[in-house]
Amino acid sequence: MKKNNVVGRNVRRLDAAEKATGTATFSTDFYLPGMLYGKVLRSPYPHARIISIDTTEAEKFPGVKAVATYQNTSREIFNTSATMTFTVPALEPVLDQYIFDNIVRYVGDEVAAVAAVSEKAAEEALKLIKVEYKELPAVFDPLEAMEPEAPDIHPNCGAGKNIPGEIVKIPFGDVDKGFKESDVVFEGRFQLPVQKQAQLETQAAVAQVGVDGKITVWSTTQTPHPSRIILAKVFGVPESKVRVLNPPYVGGGFGVRIGLSAKAEPIAVALAKLAGKPVKVVYSREEDFIASDTRHGGYVSIKLGAKQDGTFHAMELKGILNSGAYCSFSCETPGVLGAMGLAVYRVPNQSYYGHSVYTNTTPAGAMRGFGNPQAMFAIESAVDMIAEKLEMDPLELRLKNIMQAGDPWCLPYPCQSTGLAECIEKGALSIGWEKRNSLNQPGAMKLKGIGVGVGTHVSNAWPFCVDYDNAYVTVQQDGSIHLAAGVPDIGTGTSTTLPQLAAEALGVGLGEVSLTFADTATTPFDIGSHASRTCYAAGTAVVAAANDARRQILEYAGDFLNVPPERLDLKDSVIYITGRELGGQCAGTGVCQTGENRNSVSLRELAYHAHLRNKQFIGVGRIVPGNAPPWHAHFAEVEVDTETGQVKVLKIAAAHDVGKAINPLIVEGQIEGGVLMGVGYAISEEILYDAKGKQLHNSLHKYMLPTAEDAPEIDAIVVEANDPTGPYGAKGVGETGLVPTAGAIANAVYNATGIRFYEIPLTEEKVYKALKQRV
Amino acid sequence: MKKNNVVGRNVRRLDAAEKATGTATFSTDFYLPGMLYGKVLRSPYPHARIISIDTTEAEKFPGVKAVATYQNTSREIFNTSATMTFTVPALEPVLDQYIFDNIVRYVGDEVAAVAAVSEKAAEEALKLIKVEYKELPAVFDPLEAMEPEAPDIHPNCGAGKNIPGEIVKIPFGDVDKGFKESDVVFEGRFQLPVQKQAQLETQAAVAQVGVDGKITVWSTTQTPHPSRIILAKVFGVPESKVRVLNPPYVGGGFGVRIGLSAKAEPIAVALAKLAGKPVKVVYSREEDFIASDTRHGGYVSIKLGAKQDGTFHAMELKGILNSGAYCSFSCETPGVLGAMGLAVYRVPNQSYYGHSVYTNTTPAGAMRGFGNPQAMFAIESAVDMIAEKLEMDPLELRLKNIMQAGDPWCLPYPCQSTGLAECIEKGALSIGWEKRNSLNQPGAMKLKGIGVGVGTHVSNAWPFCVDYDNAYVTVQQDGSIHLAAGVPDIGTGTSTTLPQLAAEALGVGLGEVSLTFADTATTPFDIGSHASRTCYAAGTAVVAAANDARRQILEYAGDFLNVPPERLDLKDSVIYITGRELGGQCAGTGVCQTGENRNSVSLRELAYHAHLRNKQFIGVGRIVPGNAPPWHAHFAEVEVDTETGQVKVLKIAAAHDVGKAINPLIVEGQIEGGVLMGVGYAISEEILYDAKGKQLHNSLHKYMLPTAEDAPEIDAIVVEANDPTGPYGAKGVGETGLVPTAGAIANAVYNATGIRFYEIPLTEEKVYKALKQRV
Repeated sequence: MKKNNVVGRNVRRLDAAEKATGTATFSTDFYLPGMLYGKVLRSPYPHARIISIDTTEAEKFPGVKAVATYQNTSREIFNTSATMTFTVPALEPVLDQYIFDNIVRYVGDEVAAVAAVSEKAAEEALKLIKVEYKELPAVFDPLEAMEPEAPDIHPNCGAGKNIPGEIVKIPFGDVDKGFKESDVVFEGRFQLPVQKQAQLETQAAVAQVGVDGKITVWSTTQTPHPSRIILAKVFGVPESKVRVLNPPYVGGGFGVRIGLSAKAEPIAVALAKLAGKPVKVVYSREEDFIASDTRHGGYVSIKLGAKQDGTFHAMELKGILNSGAYCSFSCETPGVLGAMGLAVYRVPNQSYYGHSVYTNTTPAGAMRGFGNPQAMFAIESAVDMIAEKLEMDPLELRLKNIMQAGDPWCLPYPCQSTGLAECIEKGALSIGWEKRNSLNQPGAMKLKGIGVGVGTHVSNAWPFCVDYDNAYVTVQQDGSIHLAAGVPDIGTGTSTTLPQLAAEALGVGLGEVSLTFADTATTPFDIGSHASRTCYAAGTAVVAAANDARRQILEYAGDFLNVPPERLDLKDSVIYITGRELGGQCAGTGVCQTGENRNSVSLRELAYHAHLRNKQFIGVGRIVPGNAPPWHAHFAEVEVDTETGQVKVLKIAAAHDVGKAINPLIVEGQIEGGVLMGVGYAISEEILYDAKGKQLHNSLHKYMLPTAEDAPEIDAIVVEANDPTGPYGAKGVGETGLVPTAGAIANAVYNATGIRFYEIPLTEEKVYKALKQRV
Repeated sequence: MKKNNVVGRNVRRLDAAEKATGTATFSTDFYLPGMLYGKVLRSPYPHARIISIDTTEAEKFPGVKAVATYQNTSREIFNTSATMTFTVPALEPVLDQYIFDNIVRYVGDEVAAVAAVSEKAAEEALKLIKVEYKELPAVFDPLEAMEPEAPDIHPNCGAGKNIPGEIVKIPFGDVDKGFKESDVVFEGRFQLPVQKQAQLETQAAVAQVGVDGKITVWSTTQTPHPSRIILAKVFGVPESKVRVLNPPYVGGGFGVRIGLSAKAEPIAVALAKLAGKPVKVVYSREEDFIASDTRHGGYVSIKLGAKQDGTFHAMELKGILNSGAYCSFSCETPGVLGAMGLAVYRVPNQSYYGHSVYTNTTPAGAMRGFGNPQAMFAIESAVDMIAEKLEMDPLELRLKNIMQAGDPWCLPYPCQSTGLAECIEKGALSIGWEKRNSLNQPGAMKLKGIGVGVGTHVSNAWPFCVDYDNAYVTVQQDGSIHLAAGVPDIGTGTSTTLPQLAAEALGVGLGEVSLTFADTATTPFDIGSHASRTCYAAGTAVVAAANDARRQILEYAGDFLNVPPERLDLKDSVIYITGRELGGQCAGTGVCQTGENRNSVSLRELAYHAHLRNKQFIGVGRIVPGNAPPWHAHFAEVEVDTETGQVKVLKIAAAHDVGKAINPLIVEGQIEGGVLMGVGYAISEEILYDAKGKQLHNSLHKYMLPTAEDAPEIDAIVVEANDPTGPYGAKGVGETGLVPTAGAIANAVYNATGIRFYEIPLTEEKVYKALKQRV
């Protein structure tokens, strides 16, 4: 196998210096001369009709330049997240939002906004807006919201009361027959909390509207190109007249700004249009909590049947998720929940049924894992319960049933690779699986336990929805390389990984490559940073562009060296005739004589030679999208304090099949970050609402993110089962770090205490109550 | 012939609203947070060695963040204008400058620079830099500078004492034999002044150097991509790590910033590197005069021989130009002077010999016309003198001798079009040529006269030097168009003309097209805005990119409509089957059924259909460069006040063969602006030096630009002799407006007064003296 020079190496992140020194620019820092500051008035009610709005006093407040309400802004209906269109089947996105509406549907819903010369002035002016509301009945639980007597949050839901979009159904085999033929069956309903992305940078946008009507938006979006499509539609201009870009950094995302950054962009644009000045809108942390997408809470029911020998025979999975007040990704998330849940094990008879339900709470949308952590908490709990029923080792049961490469499955692309068995073996070794039934001394107050959870995910959103990338690679006149790709770097290292891929494919050093990214005006279309796809999918486009440029280089070099291009290779920025000794290079940038006696030419010399002949090597990369399953096994060791109910996660051994780690350190960082988010999901993080629909956990103080103290030892184990569809074999890794974590932890708690929890997070209160109940 | 929808129409300039409302951004306006201001210390001597520089006190001055001299900046030698490499023959550019050197070679040469928190602080700190100079002998006239006793301004000039680069020689036929066979011969030496571009915005740059070493420069350059090549070399980084862009507007250029904007860019970068902060350098008007390229002054000698019937038979042309202290475009300008001078008339025996000479004056470089106005003042004066000798009408003589399409000539590309005869006829009609010998009453104190001058020029710099463009055309998901081309718009309307060309080639409305331009990070290589080439050459790349995208669109539409692509056309953003009625369109952005029964599909629908299938239409345009001759005839009517010597230009009828006027209003604007610059060249503009090498005309107050009061009536007459190599037949027009003007005015003055002037400008003093001398 050919040795890679740049791929697979822990090169320093190209954004490291800028971020370490604080010189990197984020939307929140972004400044334009004459810029105004926008602030938003939000609903205090979970459901109400606006009878009247009087903005007169606010408009008179010193420094105020514009006040926006539903009365003077676009009435184009949209979806903040409708960035991708589901194509299997071709579902139209659910459009249910305006910039401002005369009905508010959750506490925090947008009522009006003010642009003023300072944040202070804008905030003061907000207080002067007089709004008369008529309260409407509200509902907060998805199961209650489906009841006939519940209020209609959005009218005319075709699939059922308060159900946005369509119901996802995935049939596979004959489930009824499957259960009849099963020897053991487990059935249970699991409840999932509302988790929050809690990314470092809150939602933010700076908008500028030119006198020629052109709109430019610098924002925190994870998807500049798709955001542009939404904004063009909302403001009624051709897409080519809208430019959306990151400036260029984004302080995290985790899905919270796929599409728009909540409504930061359209509010900033609306205010900028009204004021005739650039406007900056930065959400406060509270706004980010209450008015920006969360992970979907809800219910996942599972019925799992197995033969006596442990072979899984039937599975019925059902997901009912809480959409909140608007349909952000509430059609897609139940779909991915089902698709991923059904893809882990070979079960000949399976089915899935799922949807979301509108409630008068903060909208739920995309968050790292996208339905998959919900599914796998239920599934991995169920698998352990089947193992118990069969008195089998949970690892043995899993190894017996996990999907193999080439297996038929319900997904619309083939499973061509899996390193899951290797993940299970390596993770078991790291955690010390063999000691799991001898961890505790009799009568100990602190009980240890070990548990496992496994899973898969995607490397791309295709073919579930539109999902593609393009890239340009231009060879500069000194042979250095410029790469342009539309995909953002939301902190995941994309701006390092993509240049690594380009350098490797071309055969040049990483130091030669620069990248322009995340800007609709400067890159061809790219669907964005989501679905664990940037390295896999944008990477594929980058490699294609590099290969296109490489082909042109070798063709030109063939003429230069008087040999067929097939005989040439390009390595370390030198094109040489394979099988001959290197030598005879012409130094410098001068025009050299070509001829039979040259064995090689540097890319620098060749690029300049071409330049003198009016030619630049320009590669265009387009992908025919694919998908590939990454796999992972998490092993958790926990300690449960039976006096307080506290669950302490001591260690997570997180073994991940990433196909190929393009930059191993970045991959490990993704795994570690994911694991910690998974630990929070399992034991502490949740947003609850009071009886009036107000969030009880709307700040980083109240919301229980794991801190450094709560962090377990994490052993990130990289397994590389190359997938033929990925660049250099790579698969997705961005989301996988938390997919199986809650299941592994719940199974470890069961191993420690014998108590099966059907609800996360495993807070002290919950665990304490369960321990007391059992006694 | 197919009717054009967008091309040939006076669409409003796309930059009109921004420029009219003052919201357009220029380098001079450009601001970055934390930015410092750079000011330059300049030599008071025309030639001196720096013995010592002490910057201690300057560094201590409050607010000063960096002081740069030759001791702490790059010692890489460069040429501020070495943007293009001559390829016929392959001349290497003359490198003779550093950012700062320890020898200064003209009054204004860079000695040191300071970056401080304010312009005021930087200026004050300059005064604290102590420099000890040793004065060296200086020379100001090019003829004197070639004498053996003259000081060596740059050592080791291979072509002769103080001659930069090589001597240009163009042989054609047998000149000696030609003169022997001629019946009449005119011989004369003409003297040319130093003219100044006097563009509205002075030289300016803002530089930012990242902690990762990446360099970004917003500047007034006319050539971002080539500027990047220079800066990468000076600062020793790969070209891909340097970004140069206009922000995006430039306040004029006229050649003064082909390559770098004098030294604004490297000084700003050097200071930014030293200070660790962004630095802005904006030249004062005085700096722009004394330390920024001028037009070459010097001498053009001509010997012209004709047969008795008026047929030209031999011409010998010689140009000796004043390079000033450095070789900006001092190799290329004498070349173009000769090449253009020899291309206007069919002369079987011609030769040219020319070069520049270093002197201790402000460097001369590119300026609109680039040697051609110098040539044509001499040539058109000579042609009129031959006409007089032969007693022929000057128009008849010209019409008899002008180059015809298909004629052999000395230029390395064919002459494929000429509308010069039509220009002469239409211009003559406008000026009233027939009355030229009956304009004055006997004894009148104010004498009127009419004169003519003709000429040609280039539409591109190829094949004299490297000269090419590339462009991207991407079709957005709503069918609107994004165009990316590297070429700047220095006020010439390029940012309107190029979208017009793209819209026409694609078959969409101009309102659908947006343009990204003049930015090395966002566009493929483009050689820049110079050589009257933006519409002709960058336009060719744009049309090629549009055609590439169009081909992809029609192929996809062929599948969509189930017909071969050859049967399809695209017009008004609709793809339709030619020969069938329009109809059956599917509205909106939904997914439509394809099928036999559809006759058409809108580009909007098709682009979205492709998007749902993960495809974007991306066109790449590359040009195989060409060149084409624009032609022009200027007719001047003047009035000479015999009491004061004042020459008043009453009217210029300027007839221009532009091939095809893509936007006639823009073309007329180019002609009018050029004519006024030609009027200034002829009668008032010049920079003179005192005995110490100091400019006597270093401000807009002292330098005699024509004002509105001096402006003649201008009749811009557009003639369209389509050239097969140009986009829609277009040829260059940017520079042509002043090529024949001085000759026409001098001939008009001769017609009025009978005095032949061998030197311009025709100032009151000069004309008064000549009138008195004659008496």
